[in-house]
Amino acid sequence: MPELRKDPIVGRWVIISTERGKRPSDFPPQVKAKEPKSCPFCPGNEAMTPPEIFALRNNGGPPNSPGWELRVISNKYPALKIEGELNREGEGMFDRMNGIGAHEVVIETPNHQHDLVDLSPEQIKRVFLAYQHRMLDLKKDIRFKYLMCFKNQGEAAGASLEHAHSQLIATPVVPIRVQSELEGSERYFGYKERCIFCDIVRQEMGWGKRVVCETEEFVAIEPFAPRFPFETWVLPKKHESLYSAITDPLAGDLAGIVKTVLTKLKLALADPPYNYVLHTDAFTNAGKEYYHWHLEIIPKLTKIAGFETGTGFYINPVAPEDAALYLREIQSA
Amino acid sequence: MPELRKDPIVGRWVIISTERGKRPSDFPPQVKAKEPKSCPFCPGNEAMTPPEIFALRNNGGPPNSPGWELRVISNKYPALKIEGELNREGEGMFDRMNGIGAHEVVIETPNHQHDLVDLSPEQIKRVFLAYQHRMLDLKKDIRFKYLMCFKNQGEAAGASLEHAHSQLIATPVVPIRVQSELEGSERYFGYKERCIFCDIVRQEMGWGKRVVCETEEFVAIEPFAPRFPFETWVLPKKHESLYSAITDPLAGDLAGIVKTVLTKLKLALADPPYNYVLHTDAFTNAGKEYYHWHLEIIPKLTKIAGFETGTGFYINPVAPEDAALYLREIQSA
Repeated sequence: MPELRKDPIVGRWVIISTERGKRPSDFPPQVKAKEPKSCPFCPGNEAMTPPEIFALRNNGGPPNSPGWELRVISNKYPALKIEGELNREGEGMFDRMNGIGAHEVVIETPNHQHDLVDLSPEQIKRVFLAYQHRMLDLKKDIRFKYLMCFKNQGEAAGASLEHAHSQLIATPVVPIRVQSELEGSERYFGYKERCIFCDIVRQEMGWGKRVVCETEEFVAIEPFAPRFPFETWVLPKKHESLYSAITDPLAGDLAGIVKTVLTKLKLALADPPYNYVLHTDAFTNAGKEYYHWHLEIIPKLTKIAGFETGTGFYINPVAPEDAALYLREIQSA
Repeated sequence: MPELRKDPIVGRWVIISTERGKRPSDFPPQVKAKEPKSCPFCPGNEAMTPPEIFALRNNGGPPNSPGWELRVISNKYPALKIEGELNREGEGMFDRMNGIGAHEVVIETPNHQHDLVDLSPEQIKRVFLAYQHRMLDLKKDIRFKYLMCFKNQGEAAGASLEHAHSQLIATPVVPIRVQSELEGSERYFGYKERCIFCDIVRQEMGWGKRVVCETEEFVAIEPFAPRFPFETWVLPKKHESLYSAITDPLAGDLAGIVKTVLTKLKLALADPPYNYVLHTDAFTNAGKEYYHWHLEIIPKLTKIAGFETGTGFYINPVAPEDAALYLREIQSA
């Protein structure tokens, strides 16, 4: 059983997941991209994955058989396990609980050759609606406090299979970065009685110099203090703390701007590996006035050195104004 | 001039350092290890570096000439600049200041073929005393609030030159990770009236299962909730918040345990790239009751994926008890 452990000094929870098959002698890890033939995410190979949790089959057909457009399965090597009780306990001064959670994979397309950026806006929309669908379902499990939706694209960004997919992890604790965003934005609201993200959207759209592109409902910006070169945030223009409240037309608009941003990054940076993470409020019922969901997209261009890891202090060699200008000028369609 | 910018949501300062020569078109970066002949850190090539700030020359000789045992220079491509005023200012809702700071390099040995782990304890001690020496000097500059001492060993860990060296960065702000350690340990002290690190040292030494090795003055442990496989912390057994208070005998003892730990990691993990970061109290005059300096050593074995970057939530495939057992059993001498 994986374990959740809390660093007693800074309050960070980590997952100790030794069942994923890494032993001390297994380093450095050798991750290989699979051939399409033996790819567990390709149609016809459904039996190679755990049974599907959700799938889109426009032309019908039974579960776990070909004919799907998008498929959600449990991760075969989950970082957290779905069955069991949390059993919170102490070990002297330390705190731990069982590694209970859900770890799912969204297979974004049946086509092995396509990355997310290659899909049509309609197909990308389905991926974002699948996140919402799973979020609303997993929220019912009272053991869970948060759902992380994220994508690792390319081996350097942590992907272990090349077939286009993203991941969902539901956790019984709120991740420390999200917690500190919630606290920071609550502090700002306490002072200004305005959502800090709404203020950022307003200010950036007024100035324009860090704006990459916009649609009716969304704006993509290079944030003022980015940790990484070409770090790009996509924010809804209208206030909403919960991603799970997204509507069908809004998801369509989101798909459009995400395709544009990913296309610009691909052209600007020679198809870089990247990660994106959906930042949303925790599993609460009421939307918060002070938080604002958004998507953070981070091309993997620089190595993260000890300095950054150890101090949380990042050195970014590209000014966000330069990155935004560069990306604005790239024709994405 | 580099710039320091503050993320308004979580309060993280980042360095935007565009003068280091990276333009949007420069990605992905190509870092090459230099040949010894053209290595700027090798004896005889002193003119290839900025003038030295400090050096050890047991047999005398003029500055910036061969004959040194250890050499401290300004970084030729500094992330922060030493000259100028901070000029704190706002940009609408955002905060920035000039990127004022010191960025120095400690060349640990004249021998191009030796890594830190290959040096004698006496030579390693000199490196740790050089950190102290520079810390005491830079502390006099009232613009600075913190000094980070860290090492990137190996290209995958962020080193751009292979000749053994570590780096020092003095900053006008306290890095967010250090700030959160200070706050967390102060909270614990407020509750218990004990230093949290002293409690950790006591508990770990009592149990032994996460102890890697110890000397008279130091203990090396795998922390209870490590972010990374084989993450190892070296802590002084006696309470002290300020690294700069280290004595000569204590530095000798530290050098011994660091050599042992690095040797064990080298043998266990096939000479892995690694980072270490010295965690010490900020530039204050009085030692704090609640903070405790220590060295965090992190072998670079896993890729940091978007999930970790985006959420601060780490998945570690090796239990610290297993890593400690494995490292304990390795004969390091």
